[in-house]
Amino acid sequence: MSKLSCNNLLSIADLSHDDVMLVMGYAAFIENNMKSRPNLDLLQGKLLSTLFFESSTRTRLSFEAAMHRMGGGVLSVDGVFSSATKGESLQDMGRVVSDYCDVMVVRHNEVGAVADFAQNATVPVINAGDGTNQHPTQALLDLYTILSEKESLSGLTLGFMGDLKHARTVKSLVPLLKRYGVTIVFISHPDLKMTDDVKQVLDSSSVQVQETDCLTDALPDLDVLYVTRLQEERFTDTENFEEYQSRFCITPEVLANAKPDLSVMHPLPRRGEIHPDCDVDPRAAYFRQANNGMVVRAALLYALMK
Amino acid sequence: MSKLSCNNLLSIADLSHDDVMLVMGYAAFIENNMKSRPNLDLLQGKLLSTLFFESSTRTRLSFEAAMHRMGGGVLSVDGVFSSATKGESLQDMGRVVSDYCDVMVVRHNEVGAVADFAQNATVPVINAGDGTNQHPTQALLDLYTILSEKESLSGLTLGFMGDLKHARTVKSLVPLLKRYGVTIVFISHPDLKMTDDVKQVLDSSSVQVQETDCLTDALPDLDVLYVTRLQEERFTDTENFEEYQSRFCITPEVLANAKPDLSVMHPLPRRGEIHPDCDVDPRAAYFRQANNGMVVRAALLYALMK
Amino acid sequence: MSKLSCNNLLSIADLSHDDVMLVMGYAAFIENNMKSRPNLDLLQGKLLSTLFFESSTRTRLSFEAAMHRMGGGVLSVDGVFSSATKGESLQDMGRVVSDYCDVMVVRHNEVGAVADFAQNATVPVINAGDGTNQHPTQALLDLYTILSEKESLSGLTLGFMGDLKHARTVKSLVPLLKRYGVTIVFISHPDLKMTDDVKQVLDSSSVQVQETDCLTDALPDLDVLYVTRLQEERFTDTENFEEYQSRFCITPEVLANAKPDLSVMHPLPRRGEIHPDCDVDPRAAYFRQANNGMVVRAALLYALMK
Repeated sequence: MSKLSCNNLLSIADLSHDDVMLVMGYAAFIENNMKSRPNLDLLQGKLLSTLFFESSTRTRLSFEAAMHRMGGGVLSVDGVFSSATKGESLQDMGRVVSDYCDVMVVRHNEVGAVADFAQNATVPVINAGDGTNQHPTQALLDLYTILSEKESLSGLTLGFMGDLKHARTVKSLVPLLKRYGVTIVFISHPDLKMTDDVKQVLDSSSVQVQETDCLTDALPDLDVLYVTRLQEERFTDTENFEEYQSRFCITPEVLANAKPDLSVMHPLPRRGEIHPDCDVDPRAAYFRQANNGMVVRAALLYALMK
Repeated sequence: MSKLSCNNLLSIADLSHDDVMLVMGYAAFIENNMKSRPNLDLLQGKLLSTLFFESSTRTRLSFEAAMHRMGGGVLSVDGVFSSATKGESLQDMGRVVSDYCDVMVVRHNEVGAVADFAQNATVPVINAGDGTNQHPTQALLDLYTILSEKESLSGLTLGFMGDLKHARTVKSLVPLLKRYGVTIVFISHPDLKMTDDVKQVLDSSSVQVQETDCLTDALPDLDVLYVTRLQEERFTDTENFEEYQSRFCITPEVLANAKPDLSVMHPLPRRGEIHPDCDVDPRAAYFRQANNGMVVRAALLYALMK
Repeated sequence: MSKLSCNNLLSIADLSHDDVMLVMGYAAFIENNMKSRPNLDLLQGKLLSTLFFESSTRTRLSFEAAMHRMGGGVLSVDGVFSSATKGESLQDMGRVVSDYCDVMVVRHNEVGAVADFAQNATVPVINAGDGTNQHPTQALLDLYTILSEKESLSGLTLGFMGDLKHARTVKSLVPLLKRYGVTIVFISHPDLKMTDDVKQVLDSSSVQVQETDCLTDALPDLDVLYVTRLQEERFTDTENFEEYQSRFCITPEVLANAKPDLSVMHPLPRRGEIHPDCDVDPRAAYFRQANNGMVVRAALLYALMK
């Protein structure tokens, strides 16, 4: 077993548990080897096309850095598509660009557009975000970060906090945790609670689920706290937004009441959910998490192409 | 004879017959070798700059993929030029960027702009399209496709169909065919007929020329059918456009009356000229043609720089 | 002494005299070696990110070409930043992109923005221009050009001409000259004179300073004439601008009164300050100067990363 069971990664559901574990294993191998030798040649002679119909500087650079560090080359399209291309079907474009490279990473602002792109492609396609739908490599790097931060997940308590109703990242990550004997605490304003579909996924699993709207109560028990992006535009008035921030913003004072080995995660970019004064705290795991993004994407590229 | 007679490729007329044959030969060599080893190192250490003042995702990626597959590196500018640059003469820009690389591929929306860019350049310049004027590598890849699809051109019948009046691609390709003993059939609506200047090029050649407005009549005799892009904006009313489409669109039903070894070509992107249901038909040559684009551009880069 | 005393290059003031001399030395070495072998492998396995929040085609390509020619790889962001990124602090972005590469080159339209970006970065940051503030690699390449053009600077007369009041390039270069026994002549319209702060830097140095508004008087004594960009928008009426141009534009007729070994420099792009008919004159040093940009940037990348 050294190959993925799927040809593309369009949704996190494309991956079996074994697939996920294979990517985690490759990522650990790559991370260890990059310490002594930043550039591996595992993908030498391979060519990646990144096609970002919607810009995402960080995600694109992370994939491209991964490909470079693995010894491969990169073709890049970022938000600038010719008008001729706009009139073309995504299916045709996916078919033609397949001939130019060995793997394609595609981001698009419309749900399902990456699947359309992949339909006639003849090389693997990775979804780097299709609107509100899927961003599967984020879930993989989040899982990798939790596994890296902790010796064992068994018995740990993981908190997820923020706008859980709309949090694409959390909704993709939570199902990956259902095989681990963890307790998950959803921490949110009552208007922004985790949706039932995600909770149902955990129903028949070994995961314990709790819900609260009070960070202060939940924090002392947490081993991991995953903070999500707040989207100001979801609030109808500024007053509510500021009251929200005062209840859910992470500051050094808040962290004073947390475990000494807590890991604070955030998918970044952050806007005000975590105060920069927390950055020097060793419990701040979000920059390690961002770095893991490159490592996990390198592992995924390798798993899809080897 | 292993070098082109010209330093730049601004117009298909820059190439002698021997030049064209040299590029065809290199392309065949590269295509064969890429099958077993996708990355050649024939251009190792060479650097290509693509400067697309007007975006063309497909053409740019095809050149950049060619350079990567040949072992070279790429600098890329796509539709984003700084305001300082806008005030600068194209001649100065061509002169300065010459120092950064070994060959430049330039696309611009204005006729003649690529020639201006090349005027003071000190490395080869390839025109990747200057407005309605020239796109010489398209003609080369079209010729390569016809030569690849057929064992011999002698005695073959080639149909060109669509808006022949404005078809830059067909006008560049047809003169390359004049040394071959072929029959050319121009198939178009009476308002969109091939212009006289192109027909005159063929006058003193061994090419037989026919014209018709009826695809149904012409199709059974064709060995190659080259379909061009339709531009809806050329039609004054929608009714005409829809009537046009019904007469000239290629569908599986239409192909039922064609030879079993017909090759259907199209420069892509297509919008409705060829129905996607045709894609599984082995006679659909347009994706093979697109792939040839990379191969022929690799051959041209090699021929200009070796 | 083979390493710079600073980790970043945000301002020309970050560099000691020894730092500047080290970059000059590396540049001479690289220039000599590139003649016989265009691609060195001094930075093999290293990865550069160029992040141009404000586009500057020439500067970006020059850095990227330098990195390629030194054997390294490049990640590129040019004027297209995602909306998510816009809401993010520059400090966070600098911190995260640090993990993807070994050095970052950043350009931004706001004064101080590159320093903000560098604040939490963990790899070297080079300022490629932050608004009207600094563009330190331009000063380095200008100095390198003067040193390359002349056997010795001792006793030479260097003229700086144009809108000296606003000339960022001249203001950065002049302080680098204060250790050389040269005469500097500031040539400008009375409204556009060099500011006192720059003149004060030279007060206690071995540099002689002269000022004039008459190019005709000054020209015959000059060994170097550095012409700056004119910005038409600084003139309140067109008449003044045209009168200005007639007094300060360099033409073959003007050069007839200059020394036979004068070097005419210009940071480019030019708009009308130097007539293209001067380009064939061997005294036209501005294209050699542009080429030096790549060489000096390669030297700087090497000095920061080795």
